[in-house]
Amino acid sequence: MTRQQLIENIKARRSFLCVGLDTDLKKIPQHLLNEENPYFAFNKAIIDATAPYCVAYKPNTAFYECQGLKGWEALEMTVDYLKKNYPDHLIIADAKRGDIGNTSKMYAATFFEEMDVHAVTVAPYMGVDSVTPFLEYEGKWVVLLGLTSNKGSHDFQFIKDENGTPLYEHVLRKSAEWAGDDRMMYVVGATQGSMFAEIRKIAPTSFLLVPGVGAQGGSLEEVCKYGINSDCGLLVNSSRGIIYASNGEDFAEVAAAEAEKLQKQMEAELVKIGL
Amino acid sequence: MTRQQLIENIKARRSFLCVGLDTDLKKIPQHLLNEENPYFAFNKAIIDATAPYCVAYKPNTAFYECQGLKGWEALEMTVDYLKKNYPDHLIIADAKRGDIGNTSKMYAATFFEEMDVHAVTVAPYMGVDSVTPFLEYEGKWVVLLGLTSNKGSHDFQFIKDENGTPLYEHVLRKSAEWAGDDRMMYVVGATQGSMFAEIRKIAPTSFLLVPGVGAQGGSLEEVCKYGINSDCGLLVNSSRGIIYASNGEDFAEVAAAEAEKLQKQMEAELVKIGL
Repeated sequence: MTRQQLIENIKARRSFLCVGLDTDLKKIPQHLLNEENPYFAFNKAIIDATAPYCVAYKPNTAFYECQGLKGWEALEMTVDYLKKNYPDHLIIADAKRGDIGNTSKMYAATFFEEMDVHAVTVAPYMGVDSVTPFLEYEGKWVVLLGLTSNKGSHDFQFIKDENGTPLYEHVLRKSAEWAGDDRMMYVVGATQGSMFAEIRKIAPTSFLLVPGVGAQGGSLEEVCKYGINSDCGLLVNSSRGIIYASNGEDFAEVAAAEAEKLQKQMEAELVKIGL
Repeated sequence: MTRQQLIENIKARRSFLCVGLDTDLKKIPQHLLNEENPYFAFNKAIIDATAPYCVAYKPNTAFYECQGLKGWEALEMTVDYLKKNYPDHLIIADAKRGDIGNTSKMYAATFFEEMDVHAVTVAPYMGVDSVTPFLEYEGKWVVLLGLTSNKGSHDFQFIKDENGTPLYEHVLRKSAEWAGDDRMMYVVGATQGSMFAEIRKIAPTSFLLVPGVGAQGGSLEEVCKYGINSDCGLLVNSSRGIIYASNGEDFAEVAAAEAEKLQKQMEAELVKIGL
């Protein structure tokens, strides 16, 4: 999916919501456990219910891998279902991969050939050759970890060099040499709302994938205040706040209602910037 | 596997070799492609041939994931085969995972419950809560990326803070607050031989997993000169140099010969330090 297509989808759907498919057997409605593949049954229902309100889905690979073969199969079924039924929704494999060049090439093949999603999250620690193999696929995206939303983000990401430049800024600047805003996005956590002003000084036009709204405590309003740009430039993710809003029989409807609530707030933000 | 058991295995086998199972269908002997599971057939033959000369195996998950379900199954079969037949060999899943706390918990369950290997490589960028869930398993190891062997290691790992402390040193020092040398090892690339002296100032007693000997150009002698400690403290990995030493019918014998060559060099290094 190109940058232009993504922007068109945001405009058409009046939303820049990404729904995180962090599907956990311990948290899904118990009646689904009787299904042949409870993961897929849950994901399918959540997708069908929330698709009108979002532009992207982000399955986190950890939640599937931990079930071994069965989980990996459910992930592939989910991706196939999305591609077939919702081809305009961006699919981001939240995998946070990254290895030496010849190995990252294998990960790129995993996600962009074997699974054939649109985007994958990548960890920056190993530098250029750990990232560039993912950039060799036309129409695919790298979503590089910039500034994350977790407690541990303070351990290394804010370490400043001799000139006062923090590590996350090095990551944003250096990686901009590897790809433009049409091929690379950044993960920037919503729990660091005012930091978006700093990020926008460095990456004014890039799309930012923003986790941490909802369960992790980030505020959509603050993210937009500092982070939105003239193309929107944001994909705001919510996982637990939507998919586990109810664990009763009504889980899909309640998830849709939560997604719609966010979509309405997002529409208001899009109106503010004339999109 | 405890630290003491690992040291005993090194002493008994006169080796600190780790064989990297970076199994690639394009590189394995063509006659194996007729097998029901060529990955597993290759791995089994390599393992049986090299086990006397090494103390650890390191399958890199990327090489299996890129084949989807079939690949994941081959990885599980390989791990099961190792656990059943070579219980004294350390199994390191080279996965380079790392995510926010509740997600890293899922990755920890993947590798330490579902797959049940002894150790997993973890990326440090996201800090404390991305690493500590892996430390909650008794007898299991985190192998944290410290200083890697690839070209891209120069992009971020050597960035110095106001006091001249490079990022990789921050990673070593900070992570030492999360676990001791009985639960955490570090990846330190062999292509940066003389850097081992620096590393040993910071982590004198830790085990270091050293990739980059052989195909990537690192020298075993130099690694030992600067990196060996009184408990050995090294696991030196070779992947391509061993497993693809021949792609004929004799691949397993040739792999064994290459592994034995390294084992002999390692024995000489162990003798030097009186082990």
